[in-house]
Amino acid sequence: MLNSALKKQLIKLKQKKYRKQFSEYIVEGVKGVFEAIHHAEVLVVVIDGVKRDLPEFAQIILICEQQEIHLEFAKSTEIDAIKSTETFPGVLAIVERPDTDIYNLEISKSVIALDRVNDPGNLGTIIRTADWFGIDTILIGEGSVDPFNEKTVRSTMGSIFKVQIAETQHLKQTLAKLKDDGYQIYGFDIKGTSLNEIKNYQKQVLLFGSESHGMHEDLKKLIDITYTIDKFGQAESLNLAISAGIALWELKK
Amino acid sequence: MLNSALKKQLIKLKQKKYRKQFSEYIVEGVKGVFEAIHHAEVLVVVIDGVKRDLPEFAQIILICEQQEIHLEFAKSTEIDAIKSTETFPGVLAIVERPDTDIYNLEISKSVIALDRVNDPGNLGTIIRTADWFGIDTILIGEGSVDPFNEKTVRSTMGSIFKVQIAETQHLKQTLAKLKDDGYQIYGFDIKGTSLNEIKNYQKQVLLFGSESHGMHEDLKKLIDITYTIDKFGQAESLNLAISAGIALWELKK
Repeated sequence: MLNSALKKQLIKLKQKKYRKQFSEYIVEGVKGVFEAIHHAEVLVVVIDGVKRDLPEFAQIILICEQQEIHLEFAKSTEIDAIKSTETFPGVLAIVERPDTDIYNLEISKSVIALDRVNDPGNLGTIIRTADWFGIDTILIGEGSVDPFNEKTVRSTMGSIFKVQIAETQHLKQTLAKLKDDGYQIYGFDIKGTSLNEIKNYQKQVLLFGSESHGMHEDLKKLIDITYTIDKFGQAESLNLAISAGIALWELKK
Repeated sequence: MLNSALKKQLIKLKQKKYRKQFSEYIVEGVKGVFEAIHHAEVLVVVIDGVKRDLPEFAQIILICEQQEIHLEFAKSTEIDAIKSTETFPGVLAIVERPDTDIYNLEISKSVIALDRVNDPGNLGTIIRTADWFGIDTILIGEGSVDPFNEKTVRSTMGSIFKVQIAETQHLKQTLAKLKDDGYQIYGFDIKGTSLNEIKNYQKQVLLFGSESHGMHEDLKKLIDITYTIDKFGQAESLNLAISAGIALWELKK
């Protein structure tokens, strides 16, 4: 049974402002919790009491005991209050949110920058795809969804622990600074040079606008080359994560 | 005000079995309804009564009158019962489901085939991406999500009307027949020939397994070449729609 402070904490962590204020976020699912234990700072693990004897849960319990991680068992009625998905996968962890302040991080050679990304699933898929292609920094501008939103975390499939998330409240100034530091700014838009021409430059930022609002005019001025993914059919646009995936493939292959 | 038969019909159309039985599906949103009127057979349009004087809704009303499409206005209380999204966009259409029986359709040169795709958003994104790359047939095997699911329809962003959806209850036999007809079967998996090597053959099927279950062993036997998207980082896998998008880009570019 969970104490009321923990219950309140879990409910509050569904909200962006408390994830920021407490500097914590929630990871759900057996695989996610295992990865969190290995790659992040886990503060509390909560397991559905009726599942404690199932092999994979028993293994999590063992690891928590070995690593002295605070472990709690929840009753079914409690789970209804704390779960963030319809079908609770039986385990969650409260994880310490890493420092995401762009000015405290060492930025990698290739960076994906996102202007006002607002779909949590798209953001998670971009983080997962970046991890596949060995891009280790994602820069997220102001007005974007919280990268530690539970839907984003889930759709990263564990890559949230492997890719460095950098946040800025001043994307324009941050990009200008990266440009001063020798980064090429590659923008992606509906009109531009064919993606076929993309070069893996020494240091580069791949900048994408939001699906609903496009790219801010102020950011466009900073772009060195605008690339476009050649169209062969009729659709008006590509999904943001698909565009990022294709761009990363063409850059890295 | 909606009559009770229409209300019941709309509620039933949220379920796969009734979409099949009635051979109808629902499209929501101004853009989607416009596209449906232009590219599909619209049976009924339902507009939120309080929005009838807004310009874009007034235009839909005008088109419905011109084309003699059955038009109804709904009260707020009725919308709560019929809407499939949290925020109803003010208009929906009941659209005639096209014939999707693989044996009644003329199949294009390049086909995407999906084994047990179960995420409606992924399927919609694949349809949208196929439309961008000019691939005009998507073959959907048994055990897959309904392509006329409202989430799928929404995430196609109108491409549901442009890409031919072919359904089969016997994917193995259908692929074997396509192979007999001269199609190359290209499979996509975690291990295989680098995608860099893919050739735009005369006729080809790009076959993808499900995210959760992979590809059925029986289908693997039909594959001529298995391709893989080279990995440069750590993620265990790519999202299905991302894999399909990258494969289509590399095939078509």
